[in-house]
Amino acid sequence: MTAPLKTIEGSGEIAATMQDIGRQAKAAARVLALASADQKNRALAGMAAAIRAGKSGILSANADDLAEGKTGGLTAAMLDRLTLNDQRVEAMAEGLDVVRGLADPVGKVTESWTRPNGMTIERVKVPLGVVGVIYESRPNVTADAGALTLKAGNAVILRGGSDSHRSSRAIHAALTKGLREANLPEAAISLVPTRDRAAVGMMLQGLDGAIDVLVPRGGKSLVGRVQTEARVPVFAHLEGVCHVYVDKAAALDMAKTIVMNAKLRRTGVCGAAETLLVDRAAAATHLQPLIEMLLDAGCEVRGDAAVQKADARVKPASEADWSTEYLDAIITAGVVDGVDAAIEHIERYGTHHTDAIVTADQQAAEKFLNEVDSAIVLHNASTQFADGGEFGFGAEIGIATGKLHARGPVGVEQLTSFKYRVRGTGQIRP
Amino acid sequence: MTAPLKTIEGSGEIAATMQDIGRQAKAAARVLALASADQKNRALAGMAAAIRAGKSGILSANADDLAEGKTGGLTAAMLDRLTLNDQRVEAMAEGLDVVRGLADPVGKVTESWTRPNGMTIERVKVPLGVVGVIYESRPNVTADAGALTLKAGNAVILRGGSDSHRSSRAIHAALTKGLREANLPEAAISLVPTRDRAAVGMMLQGLDGAIDVLVPRGGKSLVGRVQTEARVPVFAHLEGVCHVYVDKAAALDMAKTIVMNAKLRRTGVCGAAETLLVDRAAAATHLQPLIEMLLDAGCEVRGDAAVQKADARVKPASEADWSTEYLDAIITAGVVDGVDAAIEHIERYGTHHTDAIVTADQQAAEKFLNEVDSAIVLHNASTQFADGGEFGFGAEIGIATGKLHARGPVGVEQLTSFKYRVRGTGQIRP
Repeated sequence: MTAPLKTIEGSGEIAATMQDIGRQAKAAARVLALASADQKNRALAGMAAAIRAGKSGILSANADDLAEGKTGGLTAAMLDRLTLNDQRVEAMAEGLDVVRGLADPVGKVTESWTRPNGMTIERVKVPLGVVGVIYESRPNVTADAGALTLKAGNAVILRGGSDSHRSSRAIHAALTKGLREANLPEAAISLVPTRDRAAVGMMLQGLDGAIDVLVPRGGKSLVGRVQTEARVPVFAHLEGVCHVYVDKAAALDMAKTIVMNAKLRRTGVCGAAETLLVDRAAAATHLQPLIEMLLDAGCEVRGDAAVQKADARVKPASEADWSTEYLDAIITAGVVDGVDAAIEHIERYGTHHTDAIVTADQQAAEKFLNEVDSAIVLHNASTQFADGGEFGFGAEIGIATGKLHARGPVGVEQLTSFKYRVRGTGQIRP
Repeated sequence: MTAPLKTIEGSGEIAATMQDIGRQAKAAARVLALASADQKNRALAGMAAAIRAGKSGILSANADDLAEGKTGGLTAAMLDRLTLNDQRVEAMAEGLDVVRGLADPVGKVTESWTRPNGMTIERVKVPLGVVGVIYESRPNVTADAGALTLKAGNAVILRGGSDSHRSSRAIHAALTKGLREANLPEAAISLVPTRDRAAVGMMLQGLDGAIDVLVPRGGKSLVGRVQTEARVPVFAHLEGVCHVYVDKAAALDMAKTIVMNAKLRRTGVCGAAETLLVDRAAAATHLQPLIEMLLDAGCEVRGDAAVQKADARVKPASEADWSTEYLDAIITAGVVDGVDAAIEHIERYGTHHTDAIVTADQQAAEKFLNEVDSAIVLHNASTQFADGGEFGFGAEIGIATGKLHARGPVGVEQLTSFKYRVRGTGQIRP
């Protein structure tokens, strides 16, 4: 078996190690901020090549993680997330190729204007600095997050799950090889070398100001802890209680197609619908077919009184159900009085993630798109489009429901900041 | 005298009052988010009219604040900041007119594209929600911050200085009148009705999630406390240790004009230069004239060995001087080895606020503009342009040195967030 990590003895040594990682990441960030698109792309190409060439080593490290996971009592779902195979390793390398193909946001002038005194002002994209990523068992996050943050000119400190540490280390070694080949500092992508949870606590404190933003990738308890305890900004969403509202002016066929896809295409993704709202004015024609369709497809339906009447298989919805993210083949369903009541319901029970309206009424659609205060609002399309790839961002590091800086799918553009460049000819302020 | 504020007895009552303010602000924010530009502008016009019409009441409340301040031992500078007069009241009303004239950012589509499946995606500006503003003795912040946050569709919770509470209340009454006339909720602009500092602590905790972002306006101790203790994002800068670097390719005349203005036009503003760096290759010709000019103008100069040799009046600079924001007629001056050393120095001692290079060498200028990691970088212009008005933003709520969301002058545009509006024709995700 791959050797387990060197044990870092005592919190003092961990603190020293983590501070050192922070300092080095900060120094690397200055180098990366000035690296050319070409240099970063050479690193990404080298990384993909190293992942492909190192496949057997990565798979063997992963086999060791899996063996330990099985003895350690990981669930089948956790083991599945942890598992790598030929296909998944190739998908990681392809992910690096995709990021390489993205436009480099750094240096992009997003606005420019001339002042009456002749000074020109440009707003130009610059990297954020150092991104901290805390994730769980999926080892591919190592490559995905490393590549995306690099593309935006940031250094990244990766803290992978304990269960996948050998796999992450093997992948990280491939990333390091790519950095080295492109003459970029290895500290551009650091992997925290300890499984001790104290390291996470130190990252949440920001490592003495080294970390500019944290991105948690994983389950609700991880994200919740990071959101509650972090002393630095966080890009994340805790839950996606996503709604589909079927308006009275919805064509039943389209409503069925969208509801089916939004709920059942994949039930475990954050953009999966968790609540179906049907306009009372359409209930007579639309409610029963929608509910039957879901039940027949194996979805449990928890409904209000009206929905319960539509089919005997419907279970009663509790108050808690309206704000529950099932991530499973379960949906809460209710009847509401038109688009205004639907908006009220979503504002009360939703999580400002992704919500959709199905309607042929343009006015109702615009009202919904304007008034629902969610990161993503859709008209006549499935909530499962809540994804950076589906938005055309090429790759995403996650989806954010906060309103500061990043919102919705967080792609390479949102991993940048900006500064103002002012060019004068000797202007002074009167 | 104007009656002092009703005393809110005990922290329980303060907590209840503050929670109530938070809840009402959040509800008001939803109304404001959907208010038309016209409705908001009508409120702003009403506010300006009410300020002008209520001038005598505002001045009388201010006189009471000043009387208390004099007895209470406020310094002359604090009393000056607190003082209102005809001109300053009119300037406040004019500030409201300026904000009214700004373009409404809400609803602005900043990007839009069509996906291969025919879905269109728009990125559209929306308000942030609820802004908390904590400020000190300047009563005009009540009007400035209230207007700017309103324009961006946000609700605001204002916590003014204890010393200026009567003035702030009188100004707030005028703002409330404008809101009422435009049928907007009064809770759109709340003024915390207690001088108890516990209220500030509660705002720093975010009032149960009601506050989306905090803006401190005032001295370093206030800003420092907010940055350290706030559990919500903060737009602020702690200090502006701004540099002017005079390169070997700088024309001496231009260098003199810019250094003079950057340091001495006003010494108390955050964009005032605190450090002068002169290229060693230009020291023989440029150093003495620059240092003499500053000294002759009454500016104290604290210099390194080379600068001390330039004029007998120069005092030695201590290590601490290089990172000191004087906000006074004092400057630290040193000689550096070219643009690279200047950049190194600024990265080491600066505060990422505003820094300028004076040079006729385009390459050196571009290097400086790219590599200095500050919110504002200038070529051949004074650092005192670090101001929202000078940038053409019409008004600003402050200057931020953070990298998340807002950076540099925070105008109406930075007081917004965004969301994605997706329009389909029945698309589902494969």
